Amino acid sequence: MTTLPKRLAAEFTGTAFLLATVIGSGIMAERLAGGNVALALLGNTIPTGAILVVLITMFGPISGAHFNPAVSLVFRLRGELTNGEGLAYVAVQIAGAVIGVWLAHLMFAETVLQFSQTPRTGASQWLAETIATFGLIAAILVTLRSRPDTMALVVGLYITAAYWFTASTSFANPAVTIARGFSDTFAGIRPIDVLPFIAMQMIGAILAAIYCHWQVCEKGTS
Amino acid sequence: MTTLPKRLAAEFTGTAFLLATVIGSGIMAERLAGGNVALALLGNTIPTGAILVVLITMFGPISGAHFNPAVSLVFRLRGELTNGEGLAYVAVQIAGAVIGVWLAHLMFAETVLQFSQTPRTGASQWLAETIATFGLIAAILVTLRSRPDTMALVVGLYITAAYWFTASTSFANPAVTIARGFSDTFAGIRPIDVLPFIAMQMIGAILAAIYCHWQVCEKGTS
Amino acid sequence: MTTLPKRLAAEFTGTAFLLATVIGSGIMAERLAGGNVALALLGNTIPTGAILVVLITMFGPISGAHFNPAVSLVFRLRGELTNGEGLAYVAVQIAGAVIGVWLAHLMFAETVLQFSQTPRTGASQWLAETIATFGLIAAILVTLRSRPDTMALVVGLYITAAYWFTASTSFANPAVTIARGFSDTFAGIRPIDVLPFIAMQMIGAILAAIYCHWQVCEKGTS
Amino acid sequence: MTTLPKRLAAEFTGTAFLLATVIGSGIMAERLAGGNVALALLGNTIPTGAILVVLITMFGPISGAHFNPAVSLVFRLRGELTNGEGLAYVAVQIAGAVIGVWLAHLMFAETVLQFSQTPRTGASQWLAETIATFGLIAAILVTLRSRPDTMALVVGLYITAAYWFTASTSFANPAVTIARGFSDTFAGIRPIDVLPFIAMQMIGAILAAIYCHWQVCEKGTS
Repeated sequence: MTTLPKRLAAEFTGTAFLLATVIGSGIMAERLAGGNVALALLGNTIPTGAILVVLITMFGPISGAHFNPAVSLVFRLRGELTNGEGLAYVAVQIAGAVIGVWLAHLMFAETVLQFSQTPRTGASQWLAETIATFGLIAAILVTLRSRPDTMALVVGLYITAAYWFTASTSFANPAVTIARGFSDTFAGIRPIDVLPFIAMQMIGAILAAIYCHWQVCEKGTS
Repeated sequence: MTTLPKRLAAEFTGTAFLLATVIGSGIMAERLAGGNVALALLGNTIPTGAILVVLITMFGPISGAHFNPAVSLVFRLRGELTNGEGLAYVAVQIAGAVIGVWLAHLMFAETVLQFSQTPRTGASQWLAETIATFGLIAAILVTLRSRPDTMALVVGLYITAAYWFTASTSFANPAVTIARGFSDTFAGIRPIDVLPFIAMQMIGAILAAIYCHWQVCEKGTS
Repeated sequence: MTTLPKRLAAEFTGTAFLLATVIGSGIMAERLAGGNVALALLGNTIPTGAILVVLITMFGPISGAHFNPAVSLVFRLRGELTNGEGLAYVAVQIAGAVIGVWLAHLMFAETVLQFSQTPRTGASQWLAETIATFGLIAAILVTLRSRPDTMALVVGLYITAAYWFTASTSFANPAVTIARGFSDTFAGIRPIDVLPFIAMQMIGAILAAIYCHWQVCEKGTS
Repeated sequence: MTTLPKRLAAEFTGTAFLLATVIGSGIMAERLAGGNVALALLGNTIPTGAILVVLITMFGPISGAHFNPAVSLVFRLRGELTNGEGLAYVAVQIAGAVIGVWLAHLMFAETVLQFSQTPRTGASQWLAETIATFGLIAAILVTLRSRPDTMALVVGLYITAAYWFTASTSFANPAVTIARGFSDTFAGIRPIDVLPFIAMQMIGAILAAIYCHWQVCEKGTS
């Protein structure tokens, strides 16, 4: 069993690299894409999906590789984290995410402290976040029963798809949402829009936990 | 053994997410691509291939992850589904597919109920659907014998290729074809063109079943 | 042990689907790319790499999934095919490749019988084909010793890379080269340029066989 | 155990193919991209990530598939290489890298001996190289403990991401950096900027070794 400090270090490092990739590749893609937003989103999607496979492969055996308070909440509900562990996970995920954003700003010679001005709000976006998070948590919980060795690939490919099939480009992660509020770049979100996104993510996560409990955890499942 | 309601729920959920991805990423890609159709198709292809790997990995051990009446038909012919199971599979696949389309419309603030006006007809398109479905069913049946653990990757990569190498962008799935009739967006098909596509898909599927029976199922095969 | 007719059917079907993908995705990509050749090549590369993973996974356990006379030649030199088997493999590979090109033309409503007018000649192109084929055969032979279960992925990713890092876009396959002479589309090659390409491919293949014999087959290797 | 000459041949061949891909795909991508740098970088990224998976799968069991003096340095620090082996590894990596660049120039009919004029300097770029190399070495060392069978995929996907999320496009490799000084093409770096890049890479590598020693190598880790 890995000690808690090492698990927290894994969550911190993984979430920081995840956000450095989301923000950094967004800046790089937008700078180079010459105004073609589909090309910029492609240059943001491929690195994000790729780094998720890397980080979950690396840190899965150490901390579970949540990098996401919605995931940690669900694992708390399932009794696999104590309250204290869950709070500590969420705290280091948020801290790591913000540090990751700031590292991306430093690497691209941007002002470190920024606040996004990109509005992301309205019923369609909120539905998108609910569906995006439902799908992410369902993918994690079902794969945990079906083929746990493929988890890193499943999550990386899920986010690759969800960047495009949800109108919100699928944040699906409260720590990511908070941190992206601190970046007035391609992947940013206006701070005032952060809380509704997180609320929808929590609803999606809990619905997924209920669905998956019935789908794969009760008797009658192989 | 998973109970039938859970298998049907898996088929419904999987097909709904598949169509939400096909339609949703099509809308996103077309909106952002600035008129470059190759870029739009790339933004439609990568998410579709990715979500197929996710969904088949998740639901394969539960329902077989058909998401496709042509696949269920072939499994019925092979005696692996009863008539009742086969009909139930097809019914929930079609229902899930249509719901998936409507969820995509809701997420992108489009009118929910639409009918496509995109013509997809003619001998070349019909040949393309026959070949596309032949290849898909052959890939599934042969891989089931060769390397069943790679099924999710094989199907995801097959569709990734078939979006580009068939002139029809490879529907290869009657439930997908019906549901795409309900979307006047990038991935749509005019309702009047749906039935001929489905007929060709059935021909392709049955030819593949015959081919694969000889290729891998008779004596003399490793 | 699979019977020879089934092995030949696998080689024929696999090579036909490979060429239908190379030519078909080339036509689709060029038609949609609006004159941007990098985008067209991307739309040609991703499907080709993807279908190779599919076809090698499917047919590897049946015929070895050569789809390439240069590969069959090397396996003949290693004593894993008889002369008769080798000739039969090469014959069905070429036949399958040409049929695959014609199916692509039919699917895209092009004239079936065409001859390419795209010149691909000169010392740089010939060096590129030698290196491309050396790398392909070396990847196959070394992976066969290192990690045979990853062969499909290795070959698919090798060709994905080689479409871009070799000036010739890496034909690396005499059957593919002959068949692409029959298509005056994006992926074609002028018939007069076919033979020098094949000669360079054979040189690359034999150099790779010698290199790999020393690198992994002699004593002293794990 | 593989003999040292064969291990060195594997390092030489692998590093040569890596650089032929980095430089060759850069030339191809820039020539075809019509001035869109995001598209050119995509055409440089996908082949580089793909060939890394191929080369590490092939040569991992033979030489460890370092292809990178920063990796060999870390393995020397961990006592898995002697001083002599480490120096020999670095020497053939640099030689292979330069030969790979020259082969790419020959394949694309460019002047063989070139010196880059692309400036890559300043605090942001140096921070990017430190982070890029920290991440690469951490991914390698942690994956070696977590899931060594996935190493080729992890490194290929890490570099795919790092081309976009670091402002320097992630050289993260002293042999690659030296060799790219010899190419006045898309992927080049001005010779005067090479040494600071290498210094930052060494700092990143050593920080990663310290971090990973604590994260996964001490007692208390699963």
